[in-house]
Amino acid sequence: MSYAAPLKDMLFVLNELADLPAVNALPGCEDATPETVEAVLEENARFCEEVVAPLNRIGDEKPSTWKEGEVKTTPGFAEAFHAFAQAGWQGVQHPAEFGGQGLPKLVATPCMEMLNAANLSFALCPLLTDGAIEALMTAGSEEQKQRFLPNFVAGKWTGTMNLTEPQAGSDLAMVRSRAEPQGDGTYRIFGTKIFITYGEHDMAENIVHLVLARLPDAPEGVKGISLFLVPKYLVNADGSLGARNDVQCISIEHKLGIKASPTAMLQFGDRGGAIGTLVGQENRGLETMFVMMNAARFAVGVQGIGVAERAYQKAVQYAKERVQSKDLEGSATAVSIIHQPDVRRMLMSMKAQIEAARALAYVAAAKVDVAHHHPDADVRAANEAVYEYMVPIIKGWSTEMAIDVASTGVQIHGGMGFIEETGAAQFYRDARILTIYEGTTAIQANDLVGRKTVRDGGAVAKEIVADVMRTANELLEASSQEGAADFAAIHAQLTEAAQALSDVADYVVANVQSDIKGVFAGSVPYLKLAGIVLGGWQMARAALAAHRKLVSGDGDAAFYRTKLTTARFFADHFLSQADGYRSAIVGGNAGMLALEEDQF
Amino acid sequence: MSYAAPLKDMLFVLNELADLPAVNALPGCEDATPETVEAVLEENARFCEEVVAPLNRIGDEKPSTWKEGEVKTTPGFAEAFHAFAQAGWQGVQHPAEFGGQGLPKLVATPCMEMLNAANLSFALCPLLTDGAIEALMTAGSEEQKQRFLPNFVAGKWTGTMNLTEPQAGSDLAMVRSRAEPQGDGTYRIFGTKIFITYGEHDMAENIVHLVLARLPDAPEGVKGISLFLVPKYLVNADGSLGARNDVQCISIEHKLGIKASPTAMLQFGDRGGAIGTLVGQENRGLETMFVMMNAARFAVGVQGIGVAERAYQKAVQYAKERVQSKDLEGSATAVSIIHQPDVRRMLMSMKAQIEAARALAYVAAAKVDVAHHHPDADVRAANEAVYEYMVPIIKGWSTEMAIDVASTGVQIHGGMGFIEETGAAQFYRDARILTIYEGTTAIQANDLVGRKTVRDGGAVAKEIVADVMRTANELLEASSQEGAADFAAIHAQLTEAAQALSDVADYVVANVQSDIKGVFAGSVPYLKLAGIVLGGWQMARAALAAHRKLVSGDGDAAFYRTKLTTARFFADHFLSQADGYRSAIVGGNAGMLALEEDQF
Repeated sequence: MSYAAPLKDMLFVLNELADLPAVNALPGCEDATPETVEAVLEENARFCEEVVAPLNRIGDEKPSTWKEGEVKTTPGFAEAFHAFAQAGWQGVQHPAEFGGQGLPKLVATPCMEMLNAANLSFALCPLLTDGAIEALMTAGSEEQKQRFLPNFVAGKWTGTMNLTEPQAGSDLAMVRSRAEPQGDGTYRIFGTKIFITYGEHDMAENIVHLVLARLPDAPEGVKGISLFLVPKYLVNADGSLGARNDVQCISIEHKLGIKASPTAMLQFGDRGGAIGTLVGQENRGLETMFVMMNAARFAVGVQGIGVAERAYQKAVQYAKERVQSKDLEGSATAVSIIHQPDVRRMLMSMKAQIEAARALAYVAAAKVDVAHHHPDADVRAANEAVYEYMVPIIKGWSTEMAIDVASTGVQIHGGMGFIEETGAAQFYRDARILTIYEGTTAIQANDLVGRKTVRDGGAVAKEIVADVMRTANELLEASSQEGAADFAAIHAQLTEAAQALSDVADYVVANVQSDIKGVFAGSVPYLKLAGIVLGGWQMARAALAAHRKLVSGDGDAAFYRTKLTTARFFADHFLSQADGYRSAIVGGNAGMLALEEDQF
Repeated sequence: MSYAAPLKDMLFVLNELADLPAVNALPGCEDATPETVEAVLEENARFCEEVVAPLNRIGDEKPSTWKEGEVKTTPGFAEAFHAFAQAGWQGVQHPAEFGGQGLPKLVATPCMEMLNAANLSFALCPLLTDGAIEALMTAGSEEQKQRFLPNFVAGKWTGTMNLTEPQAGSDLAMVRSRAEPQGDGTYRIFGTKIFITYGEHDMAENIVHLVLARLPDAPEGVKGISLFLVPKYLVNADGSLGARNDVQCISIEHKLGIKASPTAMLQFGDRGGAIGTLVGQENRGLETMFVMMNAARFAVGVQGIGVAERAYQKAVQYAKERVQSKDLEGSATAVSIIHQPDVRRMLMSMKAQIEAARALAYVAAAKVDVAHHHPDADVRAANEAVYEYMVPIIKGWSTEMAIDVASTGVQIHGGMGFIEETGAAQFYRDARILTIYEGTTAIQANDLVGRKTVRDGGAVAKEIVADVMRTANELLEASSQEGAADFAAIHAQLTEAAQALSDVADYVVANVQSDIKGVFAGSVPYLKLAGIVLGGWQMARAALAAHRKLVSGDGDAAFYRTKLTTARFFADHFLSQADGYRSAIVGGNAGMLALEEDQF
């Protein structure tokens, strides 16, 4: 099997770190009992392992192709997507009233991870549809909801996000596509959009584009952008499909990775205008798009965890099979390379980072559920605020991690890793998009500095640091107990790292006015530091939970001991970097901005 | 122009850091006057920029192809290689008696960097020939030298290294190819070799394979391996080409990168045995191969610098051209992205690492020249020892750096970086081989720990640390002078980092007996720490030299100020990582080796 879902770790994180029972106790989450959740994950794992994962290599070897405006996806993709839809997987987290399973985000998140681990290219299609559902749920009219949501949730139609234009990548103020009102409640859309994931394909009956464009009288900049819903096939009043709309796929890109996922250039309105309807209010399109983007950013972070897990599993398998060189402690014959200390170090580095990122993402997902379902408005708001702080970190840090892990996976394969047929190189290529789309790491870091740290004077950041310190203190208290030999070391690293994060948050808040460029020049290092600290925090919580389980004697002792070791490794090898980041952020902008353009 | 050789920085490093005048004063190096060297580099730059660099993209788009045992290289490669040979570039560092220019390695090194920056795939062919020349110079018979060296040096014939076999990658003890003596001074060679760079091609009249194989009575393991010279076409007594030898190219690999460079699987002896001659003594083949490999390892480090420089230049160009988003300090209109602080940080990080690695490699090259040409045997030995310590660092650290820099180059291009036609992705793919071939980073790190640190009890490591500390003290002494504002900060970082390296060397020597796996598990972090410290040391020396130049008022003041800024950046952002590495190495093996195989 090319992918085996890490269900044991997933269930451990759900139950011990993300408090699934507490989520299950929320109004509206009654169905998500631990037993049901386990059954759902097992079923999802089977589907991803058996149906989706085997299509990963062929997607790289036989990418989607374009011919005269039509896109033919990789052989097997359409059938797999129909099976996915039929089994109801598109609807895991969506409301029952539109045909979904209505399960919490905490349950949808491991499902998302599995699908992405199985096949990053394939998973992008449902990921975008999730975003479209989120947008319509937030701002769609009742008619739009009734007409589109059941078809999205059933996987009959898919969604896309149309932001980027040739002259406007990260900078949406430069969007030039335009929308002309027809007086009948519809609009005609004109413009060119690029980098549209699954902008055209043959896997569903209809493709529904969510498109940013400007009305004739719209103000300049981002406050003049509206959001439109533009289906490939118009939808008749009875819900049946009507005429082909005026949106054409001009070409698809020839990419470094995720080759099976068609990245389309779409031309709207070459034949009189593509007919669309407004989503939400005029000129407020960006707000809705941000809802969609925030969900997508979290999802891309989870993509990073998925592809990293897949790369790790492949590397472990190779390291156990490949026999070469004697054991350093003097075996007579050659041994498998997993006995080599540096291969160990690389595998531990992959494993530790993946588990930390997974724990952080699932814990954040639980916060969304609390923020949506908790009866107390203050609790909802507090959870929402922490989640908002975490989103850019989950997106930015988990995806940077994924590139690192995929590259390490290639390294473990040695020369074979560089040969395409081996498959390790695909993860290295595929993962490379993750720090770019849905906002580059720098965009995430800008968000972390601006909206998530400066705006509240660092309040949420400091709250989180206080929580981390509480976990560190628990480690210290437990460190004298039997089986807790590593706790003192983890405590020391975690305390220092949390202090570094605290200092950096202070620095950011204190200096953003007087030295805005200096502060923003440190934004990506700040994001990485925050990732390490928050990831290390979750690994410390995992170590405490594993220790409790070992003391109580229930469950899989080998798993818990592995978790303790992995937490210790994370502390020694990643938390130990925190001081260097602080130093670079707080003292390091002298060299960063001093040069003139022509000195480069 | 897609590549502009960084001649200004190269000449600065040659003259101010690597002491070209002192090399020029060595017996046998009289021709290498600063004026001649500058002329040679300018001429080489022109050739690389105009002839070789334009073939880089097409090499990726139209890789070498295999058909019935023959390899057709990328259109234009053969013509460019003939021009390269005719201009005498293969012979830069090789003796005049065989037709070379007899210039020092210090001069050949920037030439090598330029060729690799221009085209990594193309440069591999002469790189391997250099290795074959080195092997024959070291251990070849007089007849082998006379027959082969002039043709190698003239670029008429090319060389290959045949080590790897399907069951034996890094572990040469497992080599199974065999050689049967024919009683006439020749041998018949049988076996399969894989991953043979330029093992077959159409760029030269003959291809000469240096092949590791076992004699019938050879002992087991690496002490039973002999080295053979096996030409594709046998060479007649008069030097003309004779019959086709029994070596066949079975296939070439489908690779992640360096696609124009054919990576061959060679079958020796399917039709009665490939005829070869012994190089050096029986069963001592590995020693000669190590001479060749050591030269090749240094050269691969330089490949890393070359491809990183190319990726940097492309990113700078894009950052200056791509207009998007307003300036953070409030321009009314959108500006080029080089104004964004994080783009600055990324460019500085690329620039600083490249300049540090370049300085370290050139300084090491000068040590080779002193080690070969100095009249005093003690001076020769001391320089040889320092060079030997530096080789695994130059190979390991510069290539890891190259992957990081190429990846950052993709990131700066945003979504365009992921599109193959942009070209940034090619560097990310090409660079990925560099940490694998000629010994993975782990193999380099093993060498650094075993042969280069433990064997002499850390003596050379500590000598280098003492030198670094002397440079740090110079910074401190100069820090009160005008224009030396950054020196105190660089001094602080450099001193701490050097102390970390010193502590790690002590730890390695003290613990290798009692905890061999623990020490080797920290070997790659040790290598990276050493890279940072030695690179930071060279940047500190560069800052001192630049400051002297500014004070004296001669030369390009803007260049020197840029160098000061870059040195400061390196200290703030890289030397600051040293403490984290020490902590991970010295305290971090608890989690590294604790797991059982089945816990992964």
